[in-house]
Amino acid sequence: MTERTALPLFPHRHLLGIKGLSPLDIEMLLDRADADVSISRQSEKKTSTLRGRTQINLFFEASTRTQSSFELAGKRLGADVMNMSVASSSVKKGETLIDTAMTLNAMRPDILIIRHASAGAAALLAQKVDCSVVNAGDGAHEHPTQALLDALTIRRAKGRIGGLTVAICGDISHSRVARSNIILLNALGARVRVVAPSTLLPSGISQMSVEVFNTMKEGLAGADVVMMLRLQRERMEGAMVPSVREYFRYWGLDAEKLKVAKEDALVMHPGPMNRGVEIASEIADGPQSVIQEQVEMGVAVRMAVMEALLDPRRNPDGAAI
Amino acid sequence: MTERTALPLFPHRHLLGIKGLSPLDIEMLLDRADADVSISRQSEKKTSTLRGRTQINLFFEASTRTQSSFELAGKRLGADVMNMSVASSSVKKGETLIDTAMTLNAMRPDILIIRHASAGAAALLAQKVDCSVVNAGDGAHEHPTQALLDALTIRRAKGRIGGLTVAICGDISHSRVARSNIILLNALGARVRVVAPSTLLPSGISQMSVEVFNTMKEGLAGADVVMMLRLQRERMEGAMVPSVREYFRYWGLDAEKLKVAKEDALVMHPGPMNRGVEIASEIADGPQSVIQEQVEMGVAVRMAVMEALLDPRRNPDGAAI
Amino acid sequence: MTERTALPLFPHRHLLGIKGLSPLDIEMLLDRADADVSISRQSEKKTSTLRGRTQINLFFEASTRTQSSFELAGKRLGADVMNMSVASSSVKKGETLIDTAMTLNAMRPDILIIRHASAGAAALLAQKVDCSVVNAGDGAHEHPTQALLDALTIRRAKGRIGGLTVAICGDISHSRVARSNIILLNALGARVRVVAPSTLLPSGISQMSVEVFNTMKEGLAGADVVMMLRLQRERMEGAMVPSVREYFRYWGLDAEKLKVAKEDALVMHPGPMNRGVEIASEIADGPQSVIQEQVEMGVAVRMAVMEALLDPRRNPDGAAI
Repeated sequence: MTERTALPLFPHRHLLGIKGLSPLDIEMLLDRADADVSISRQSEKKTSTLRGRTQINLFFEASTRTQSSFELAGKRLGADVMNMSVASSSVKKGETLIDTAMTLNAMRPDILIIRHASAGAAALLAQKVDCSVVNAGDGAHEHPTQALLDALTIRRAKGRIGGLTVAICGDISHSRVARSNIILLNALGARVRVVAPSTLLPSGISQMSVEVFNTMKEGLAGADVVMMLRLQRERMEGAMVPSVREYFRYWGLDAEKLKVAKEDALVMHPGPMNRGVEIASEIADGPQSVIQEQVEMGVAVRMAVMEALLDPRRNPDGAAI
Repeated sequence: MTERTALPLFPHRHLLGIKGLSPLDIEMLLDRADADVSISRQSEKKTSTLRGRTQINLFFEASTRTQSSFELAGKRLGADVMNMSVASSSVKKGETLIDTAMTLNAMRPDILIIRHASAGAAALLAQKVDCSVVNAGDGAHEHPTQALLDALTIRRAKGRIGGLTVAICGDISHSRVARSNIILLNALGARVRVVAPSTLLPSGISQMSVEVFNTMKEGLAGADVVMMLRLQRERMEGAMVPSVREYFRYWGLDAEKLKVAKEDALVMHPGPMNRGVEIASEIADGPQSVIQEQVEMGVAVRMAVMEALLDPRRNPDGAAI
Repeated sequence: MTERTALPLFPHRHLLGIKGLSPLDIEMLLDRADADVSISRQSEKKTSTLRGRTQINLFFEASTRTQSSFELAGKRLGADVMNMSVASSSVKKGETLIDTAMTLNAMRPDILIIRHASAGAAALLAQKVDCSVVNAGDGAHEHPTQALLDALTIRRAKGRIGGLTVAICGDISHSRVARSNIILLNALGARVRVVAPSTLLPSGISQMSVEVFNTMKEGLAGADVVMMLRLQRERMEGAMVPSVREYFRYWGLDAEKLKVAKEDALVMHPGPMNRGVEIASEIADGPQSVIQEQVEMGVAVRMAVMEALLDPRRNPDGAAI
């Protein structure tokens, strides 16, 4: 903690996505997060970096996991944290999002963490408010802190990201987690594969700097990291997936499929898991799984992001002093 | 902040309504709030005035805006804030309100902020508990902190309240905001007009020291302040309003209607707004609008009210020491 | 507070039930709680005993009263408190409870307070996480902090527990409050009676070291303490109770029935009360009632339990250093 002031100033005021971040920006956040891991492992998990700062968690979609992670991150940094879970029923149009944002803005928060079902909601908000904005998931667009925590988990386990082969498997087309990870992993020099049935691949996949595989066996062959995605329940009942049982048979990660990856391949999942759907329990709880580490790194990454955005060397208008 | 101890002792233990406050009481709260505005504009928005004090927000009606404002006010004063949003379904009779109050009281809070659908709920509570009570809206009765924040907004923009002409427009009969504002503005010497269709005027309006107008053109003529009220959605579907479109045509504030007010008239709204119903978007976002300032003043007023009620010079029984 | 370090180390890492605690363990918690009562009676209700510690309230069943009590206890000890109210609808199997627990565990809390509809949920959780676990009610199994607060209330009013006759009345069979109280009161040497219609007695009652009575008159004769239980609404409509009116007539505590107990008998109820069902209002609010004291003691007991479990003399693995 004593070395904080020596860190370079993060050159952005908001974290709206991984897109737009340079490799250096990303490494800077990962370095800072790496240093923050120890705070949560202490008995007294408390710093005063953000003392007196106001953090508002504005979640238009329920997310126990992500909201909790941001809440603990803020509290451990000494911020005053306020949760606002907005029932989606009471929010019908973009106009209301902006009025809500303007109202909160007038209460002078320092940072707004927003999750919203619409792609672009965080960026829209950032244009309207005076404080920093962190995108905690906007539709199928981006979820940058998830990609950062995944990267931190990989880097700590493997020592690097560049040169690794990462297979992202499952519902690519509806996944902001996949999108943010693809951008970040490419930026840091990993080789990214996507492994999915054609019904769960986005139409623009060929522009995304990934190799596409249509079977797990081919997609996982020699991979350093196997990143499973959650199959949304609504997808299970739609026309895109034959049946949960069939899905698990072809696309669920089990011991047999994992065997074709590298022997020390990491198994990752952003949670919450559908055990027996996209991942077998023995794998989720097995020795290659770093799923719990991902959660722990999530708190550290969110601390680092908020510290970087609210750097006291930046003036209130967002520019460096 | 250093001058706090020099402020006179606020002579009330609860804030149940504007009724019962002297002009001096009101000015004292506005002066204190004026001083508190700067706290929220600092980077470290934190004082220790209420350190170790327990504030409970007991909201029987959902109110994102008011509850957030009280929560931030308390946290910035250093209090421990606990939110209790009580689903109205689980509360059926006054007896339950009292049992809930007695239970909370036994947990030794210092201040209870209550919102309830029944007029008089806050006063009833105040009789039963040992701590200070702030009415955050009780039925169609009073919403004193709203009237105080409106007054602070006006005073900061116009330099005074006495002598100003304030037109309150819309659903007067169901509005606690209107009631509290009428009492406060009269107490401080403003000339208060109400502008509404006859179906939205309360029966006792003639006793309320206001001038009644039945058209916006007449009611707004020469006004210094135009205060619009929210049209509750349930009213829109009832027999009291012809249609949203008709309502906006006759009672919604647009550029043409605003032209008859003074050139520098303030436009106010307690929020949340129904854009295109009681107010046109161009006016809500226009140069005369102080709607965002109202929200900011809301935090300052709530800080001031809680500081005044929990003045350390008062002993725990509420009397001055 | 200055004498804290002189207190003996509490020999358990979790509080899953009263069962398993020695009489000395119980007295140690009551002594500590007794000392904590004064904290909440001060103007500045704040210590730094748990500063920087993370407390998570994980409530799978809604409970305004118990959750609030734990929240205030934690905040007054200086902990960072996070509430997670998990809608029961989103939790369908034990597996999900464990995944939720594992996820929270990875965020490095110091203490988890859990309420769950299934008996054994807290014990299951305790096996899976690295932090301390407090059972805040698991099905019809145990609710240890309720029994402790009841014991503290009795001990403060009567000076002792050993030798007292305590009559627990009402729905014994579905009550975790009754179970925990029976175990605790027996451990401390009280004579425990249960008074209930046969339909509301558990089948294993004969193994529980209690005397069973089938009328209030016999059960309350000469009692030092009369502890009423809440009749769950779903029981009122089932086949186990004839009608609310009949129930009150035979099993509700009124002045006439109370007369047969000792003149200075305490009247207790864990809340929330059904006035006119299991207890008459005049008794609930009468001079023998200690129902409000129970609530106050609840905060103190929860402070004491959390302090004892998170004793800094214990290392992070739970063993004494």
